[in-house]
Amino acid sequence: MLTAMSLRTPDEYRAAVAADGRTLYYRGKRVDDILAEPELRVAVDHAAIDYEVAEQPEHRELAVATNPATGDEYSAYYKVPRSAEDLLQRSKLIELCTSLGGTMVTLIKEIGSDGLFAMLRTLDGESLERALAFAAHCRDNDLAVAVAQTDVKGDRSKAPHQQDDKDMYVHVVAEQEDGIVVRGAKCHTSISANADEIIVFPTRAMGADDADFAVAFAVPANAPGLSMYVSSYSAGERDEWDFPLSSKHKMLETLTVFDDVFVPWDRVFMCREPELAGPLALSFVEYHRFTAVSYKLPLLDLLVGSAALIADMNGVAKAGHIRDKLTHLIIYAETVRALTETAARRARIDGRGIAYPDPMTTNLAKYTFATQYHHALELVQDCAGGLLVTGPGVDDWNNADIRAVLEKYFGAAAPAAERLRVMNLIADLTARDFGGYHAVLAVHAEGSIEAEKMQILRSYDARGPLAYAKRLVGID
Amino acid sequence: MLTAMSLRTPDEYRAAVAADGRTLYYRGKRVDDILAEPELRVAVDHAAIDYEVAEQPEHRELAVATNPATGDEYSAYYKVPRSAEDLLQRSKLIELCTSLGGTMVTLIKEIGSDGLFAMLRTLDGESLERALAFAAHCRDNDLAVAVAQTDVKGDRSKAPHQQDDKDMYVHVVAEQEDGIVVRGAKCHTSISANADEIIVFPTRAMGADDADFAVAFAVPANAPGLSMYVSSYSAGERDEWDFPLSSKHKMLETLTVFDDVFVPWDRVFMCREPELAGPLALSFVEYHRFTAVSYKLPLLDLLVGSAALIADMNGVAKAGHIRDKLTHLIIYAETVRALTETAARRARIDGRGIAYPDPMTTNLAKYTFATQYHHALELVQDCAGGLLVTGPGVDDWNNADIRAVLEKYFGAAAPAAERLRVMNLIADLTARDFGGYHAVLAVHAEGSIEAEKMQILRSYDARGPLAYAKRLVGID
Amino acid sequence: MLTAMSLRTPDEYRAAVAADGRTLYYRGKRVDDILAEPELRVAVDHAAIDYEVAEQPEHRELAVATNPATGDEYSAYYKVPRSAEDLLQRSKLIELCTSLGGTMVTLIKEIGSDGLFAMLRTLDGESLERALAFAAHCRDNDLAVAVAQTDVKGDRSKAPHQQDDKDMYVHVVAEQEDGIVVRGAKCHTSISANADEIIVFPTRAMGADDADFAVAFAVPANAPGLSMYVSSYSAGERDEWDFPLSSKHKMLETLTVFDDVFVPWDRVFMCREPELAGPLALSFVEYHRFTAVSYKLPLLDLLVGSAALIADMNGVAKAGHIRDKLTHLIIYAETVRALTETAARRARIDGRGIAYPDPMTTNLAKYTFATQYHHALELVQDCAGGLLVTGPGVDDWNNADIRAVLEKYFGAAAPAAERLRVMNLIADLTARDFGGYHAVLAVHAEGSIEAEKMQILRSYDARGPLAYAKRLVGID
Amino acid sequence: MLTAMSLRTPDEYRAAVAADGRTLYYRGKRVDDILAEPELRVAVDHAAIDYEVAEQPEHRELAVATNPATGDEYSAYYKVPRSAEDLLQRSKLIELCTSLGGTMVTLIKEIGSDGLFAMLRTLDGESLERALAFAAHCRDNDLAVAVAQTDVKGDRSKAPHQQDDKDMYVHVVAEQEDGIVVRGAKCHTSISANADEIIVFPTRAMGADDADFAVAFAVPANAPGLSMYVSSYSAGERDEWDFPLSSKHKMLETLTVFDDVFVPWDRVFMCREPELAGPLALSFVEYHRFTAVSYKLPLLDLLVGSAALIADMNGVAKAGHIRDKLTHLIIYAETVRALTETAARRARIDGRGIAYPDPMTTNLAKYTFATQYHHALELVQDCAGGLLVTGPGVDDWNNADIRAVLEKYFGAAAPAAERLRVMNLIADLTARDFGGYHAVLAVHAEGSIEAEKMQILRSYDARGPLAYAKRLVGID
Repeated sequence: MLTAMSLRTPDEYRAAVAADGRTLYYRGKRVDDILAEPELRVAVDHAAIDYEVAEQPEHRELAVATNPATGDEYSAYYKVPRSAEDLLQRSKLIELCTSLGGTMVTLIKEIGSDGLFAMLRTLDGESLERALAFAAHCRDNDLAVAVAQTDVKGDRSKAPHQQDDKDMYVHVVAEQEDGIVVRGAKCHTSISANADEIIVFPTRAMGADDADFAVAFAVPANAPGLSMYVSSYSAGERDEWDFPLSSKHKMLETLTVFDDVFVPWDRVFMCREPELAGPLALSFVEYHRFTAVSYKLPLLDLLVGSAALIADMNGVAKAGHIRDKLTHLIIYAETVRALTETAARRARIDGRGIAYPDPMTTNLAKYTFATQYHHALELVQDCAGGLLVTGPGVDDWNNADIRAVLEKYFGAAAPAAERLRVMNLIADLTARDFGGYHAVLAVHAEGSIEAEKMQILRSYDARGPLAYAKRLVGID
Repeated sequence: MLTAMSLRTPDEYRAAVAADGRTLYYRGKRVDDILAEPELRVAVDHAAIDYEVAEQPEHRELAVATNPATGDEYSAYYKVPRSAEDLLQRSKLIELCTSLGGTMVTLIKEIGSDGLFAMLRTLDGESLERALAFAAHCRDNDLAVAVAQTDVKGDRSKAPHQQDDKDMYVHVVAEQEDGIVVRGAKCHTSISANADEIIVFPTRAMGADDADFAVAFAVPANAPGLSMYVSSYSAGERDEWDFPLSSKHKMLETLTVFDDVFVPWDRVFMCREPELAGPLALSFVEYHRFTAVSYKLPLLDLLVGSAALIADMNGVAKAGHIRDKLTHLIIYAETVRALTETAARRARIDGRGIAYPDPMTTNLAKYTFATQYHHALELVQDCAGGLLVTGPGVDDWNNADIRAVLEKYFGAAAPAAERLRVMNLIADLTARDFGGYHAVLAVHAEGSIEAEKMQILRSYDARGPLAYAKRLVGID
Repeated sequence: MLTAMSLRTPDEYRAAVAADGRTLYYRGKRVDDILAEPELRVAVDHAAIDYEVAEQPEHRELAVATNPATGDEYSAYYKVPRSAEDLLQRSKLIELCTSLGGTMVTLIKEIGSDGLFAMLRTLDGESLERALAFAAHCRDNDLAVAVAQTDVKGDRSKAPHQQDDKDMYVHVVAEQEDGIVVRGAKCHTSISANADEIIVFPTRAMGADDADFAVAFAVPANAPGLSMYVSSYSAGERDEWDFPLSSKHKMLETLTVFDDVFVPWDRVFMCREPELAGPLALSFVEYHRFTAVSYKLPLLDLLVGSAALIADMNGVAKAGHIRDKLTHLIIYAETVRALTETAARRARIDGRGIAYPDPMTTNLAKYTFATQYHHALELVQDCAGGLLVTGPGVDDWNNADIRAVLEKYFGAAAPAAERLRVMNLIADLTARDFGGYHAVLAVHAEGSIEAEKMQILRSYDARGPLAYAKRLVGID
Repeated sequence: MLTAMSLRTPDEYRAAVAADGRTLYYRGKRVDDILAEPELRVAVDHAAIDYEVAEQPEHRELAVATNPATGDEYSAYYKVPRSAEDLLQRSKLIELCTSLGGTMVTLIKEIGSDGLFAMLRTLDGESLERALAFAAHCRDNDLAVAVAQTDVKGDRSKAPHQQDDKDMYVHVVAEQEDGIVVRGAKCHTSISANADEIIVFPTRAMGADDADFAVAFAVPANAPGLSMYVSSYSAGERDEWDFPLSSKHKMLETLTVFDDVFVPWDRVFMCREPELAGPLALSFVEYHRFTAVSYKLPLLDLLVGSAALIADMNGVAKAGHIRDKLTHLIIYAETVRALTETAARRARIDGRGIAYPDPMTTNLAKYTFATQYHHALELVQDCAGGLLVTGPGVDDWNNADIRAVLEKYFGAAAPAAERLRVMNLIADLTARDFGGYHAVLAVHAEGSIEAEKMQILRSYDARGPLAYAKRLVGID
């Protein structure tokens, strides 16, 4: 059906990341084919949503972009934003895929394009040319691209070069004629296990002493010397009745170890340029936090929707305190949505014509999301009831005799069959490991709450308010 | 300088509201000329800002509109909004005048035009024609217009017609050939004492039994039978050194009593039409809450600016907890600003081509403002210090011997002369009656916090989130 | 070692609840011997702590009481409180066992004695005599006793007698010469699966029409017609490395179905006495909420302790924002502790000489615990970092090659071996199903947040404050 | 009536502080007789409550202590606490006098005795003997005693000895045979203007370089060289109808300037002993924060009582959201009360047998009070309504014609006469300068919120929680 060279089918994506020789470990064992391991395959199938949308007629307009020069179609994720409208459309696409992903972001094109845009904004000269070429490569081959940024850091009170073990931050071991050799490890690397390519960025601003650590590059996921240790958090196969979300939707995180990995020069975007480390890291974060607040919206909608639905099924939707709790959930969800929208509408266009979301507003949205999330969980759980953690499982439900008991006793303003499903949905979302994953991500992913506060303070222009205060008392 | 017929000078406005025979009481006495009573005159001078901006070259573009048909200039406040951009400009104009007003809204054109727009959206037939004529009258004569809406209400557990004393809600006493006669009282009527005209709206939705109370009309401020009792809250003349804001900026509130006031038919917009009471009241509130969040912005800016300034003057601006508090103030102020902006950008255009701000977003903005205001006061006071309430007064400062002591002992990272002024600014803003006025208004003006929550819940479209929750568990 | 007749060994307890013919279902199957099912046995072993403490020299003083008349020793849980000091000691014993239980309450004597005390306070005449006899039975045989109170409720907008299916509330089906027959189901019944006896109480106040539902009684866990469906929430065997808490500590919840269960008269404490339903339910809640806040203390201590420990291991313990977060956790934990202590110290002694904790203070403690719990989770997760949900599992750790990588890269200010263990502790506590269980219990167990607010308002004596306000303005 | 030498009558107190030659300035002028200046006299009359209670039969038991050795009666404020019970009684006495003082603390014996107890606990040798003698002097002459502690501080980023102007901290200018000479200024000195004696303490811990500033002493209020500049905050005479509280209750704050004041050795408690500055300052704060939370209780009661009363008068007491707000106010008030009580009950007894309240619990109480105060104001204002700031004044009320209008239109579920009085009570308490004074004191008096957090963290014993966390994962 699809004729353009640059759009892959979901199965083409699956085939590309399977059995390509990448070094993957899971639950203590080497995994040769990610598709053959059911607990990992669910993450590949989940990620494939980013490819499926391009094939769905109702989503094509949002998901597919056209190169005006060539007429070629390519994934809209790789379209460099030039306007507020572009950012709004990008946000909608991220929201759509996450919505189809049961509140779990797909991320395999989102984060990579965030990284590419950051390079296009901050690099210059030959580095910029390499980045442009790599961006075209990702776009034209419709690739899944991870970004590995967070170093393992060792002693957090010390700079990279002060660490006892230099490998605590990824660094340049050698420069050769044909490329560089890198060593070290990144942690919390999302979707690397099922990506085609991995972009590596420094985690923070660097000083001159940290030159070796000021390195940015890209490698294919099967690069020699690169090993990925997939987290076993939320391991285990799951039945869909018990776990409506996590049985089908999953994101993999890896400890990503670079053991003297060779990177050819055309894949090296920064090498021993400490003055560039901060700007590149920050520019990536600017895009990535906007991605974050965009992909949080289905999660927020589900908090509202599942709380309203279960309250109704419990027969308590009209109680004053329930209405109050639903209103608070709405206020929370819609404030984040409005701030996300405003971050896009206040788009800034840099000297190269590239648009990026307003940093202060983006951080406002992210901060608001992060600091009210746990309270929102309390409200949803309050609307649902204790049955969230005292209810039956799928084996009970599948036993006809037991099911008859459950149907009799767990019905309320809705039949038990429906009510128990919604209970399980909310338990999965708020009271089991999938919920815990969301909760910890709320606090830490794409920057901590403290980082967001710092960015708000930095990006706020205090001159007007200060001048206003002074004017009112006639000083200055 | 001004040639258009429809723009008055500030002095023309002053002259119009002075000694026109209106029945005004203040501090137990009849006031014949509002300009002759210094404590009231300050409110007239403050309100005149709405006329001054039209004369100021740097503000004319925002403050003056032009009738494309006639080329006549008129106050931009009376421009009927037709687009998101119109609402954004209106918001900016309100913000400007409030900023010039030292955080106190001027309101004499804001609230009246809110009322006019509501009538243009909800009335029909002859009523609409009367409203259009009255709107043209206000615009062409550049009038100051109050809206009296809140009835005194008596026993709040009873509907209007159930009250022991029917006068607890303004109502129609008689219909005559030439007009109607009304009786009752409205409270919390802002700027009525210094307005040209007073629009009267019902305070709530009405049932058929309440037909007599479903009345809307306009009367000049000097209408026979109309008496206004100006609140003595914050009475007393004030020195500018002690009270940088409240010595110059003031809004008057009245108990507005209609003692068989005659209203000719061309000023009657609704008479015994209970089904219209709710829509008209609500439409007014939609505009007026948007006015409210627009005029709160300078207040929020001053909370941020004065806290940052005094922290700097105290020499503690770099302390971690101070930075944290300033960041919280910024988050608060900028979230309200972003929501206000979004309410305008999400403008809805009704079937008549009239724009109004998105109700849910407007209420989100208002709710966010109202529920975090008192905490913001705590943060500002925390940054300032106890000197807010233990410092010297203007008489101390004017005594050269005492001033020498104060200069020696109250300097910090800024000279005492400046630091004490900023302390007084913050005390006026947060810890004296002007501050209390702002705080109570935050909770009650333009609708209570509960009313805002109710409107959020009502205007939220829950269908998407409910459908999403159901889809994820395969029901419906 | 123990000579008293009334103290059982842990193994005697285990033997008593194993294979006694009780009707138990788990994961879709009938379970004949609870000890033979590893996922259930962990709960029996956990509950046995209540017996172990009586054998431990360092805990005997707190855990064992002596009958002054006979010199017999018995479990201190069954000592009827007569003073504030008794309540303080009871609170300490509950705290101790929960602490040994890894933050999970043992409950098998706590809740039963709460129920017994409530009966001793509210019953009269023959009912009281039966209750006294049953209390002696529990004490003298050192029994594990559950309380089943929450009915499944059906349509929550209807009273018991209005339900379409009468079985939605447990009710009397027949009165016979030798006893009564009951039918219906209770949900959220904790520790019933591994208890000796189950006390059944009504869930709420009842009206005259609800007489059939005003029933209280006790049955052995293996009573004919009684079936218990154990919740499969948090099912699955767990390794101790991955799950330091939940691998060893567990509480079972059942749907407890009474299918025409016969109860002899000496086990019937209330039968068709609706006027007693409310007082009995409330008195039980008064004791049980005090039990609740007592058993929450180790959980709160662990939130503080684990956050402080991981912050230290991460090398960030001195950061200002980390200190701030730890301080908030301390304030939370210590406020609940102080309120719990005060609830005991303000003990009320009823006309029978039985002490009960001050209701308002108990509810203050419970409310404070419940409403800040989720925010506390956010703070702990913030101190810990994203590794909570991206880290390795026990199979990784047990692979020597992988362990070497983990040791190299996951060390910080503490070796990886220790840091990863604490991460898993915190993940178990806050971000997996054990954590979700705690979180949902915080909101719902022993009464919802709304119920606590209602009790605070009801038990508050407003007369003093009202009189004070009136006196200050000279009215009344 | 009173025969004991050590108890003065209120008038004896008034006479003692009037026209004794003290150097007092108010509103730019020297005041020779504090009783002759009405705006200051109100503070003297208010403070006299501390003497009145000793004459009131119903309060004598709490207010008067007896020297067991001599049988002499003396003010219970000066009784050195030896037990938890003593601290509870002291708390009750403070609460009583503040309650009689319309929520304003009397303080003239409270703060002085806080200072005396601190000296008795921390001083040694000759210094201790002087302190004992001075304590006996205060007790036996039933004196009003202020404590001046907060230095004006100049540049807060510098230590005392680093200040450009050494006078920014009170310091020793000269040591002479008969005493010392001191210079500098203290700010926020409460009740000094109407005290007999003023104790001076250092404001913070000091290093060796700051020896000159490590000075503690006492001087009579009329000491030569001592000048007091009374703050003009809340200046102006007030009618009792408009201002039910602030017309009768007031506390004076001074800038207290020491211009080479001579202090004889028997009044010098510390001189150039920097190692003692911290312990003395801290010990004073320990007592004084306990005094603070004790005197906050009537204020909290009035927030609850006035909100409940006005809600009832408005006819909205049964509305769900009003009940919710009242419940929150109750939770706030009663949590502070319970923590205050617990701080006393957890009394620590030092090696000298002197009792002091548990520091961590005291700070918990103070922190809880301080951080929820502004939100409580919002809740009270929400219950009251906008009439708080739009209502009539006493001159309106006293005009019979106007009063008739007010009576007609401002009645609700209570007559206007009563409802308006309660509105004015709440306005005085929350929305005018008296309210602002309370609000700023909540944040700053007796130590800032940050200081309280720091003390909580310092006084918390983390060893148990840390050991618990370690034990659960088997480390250490």
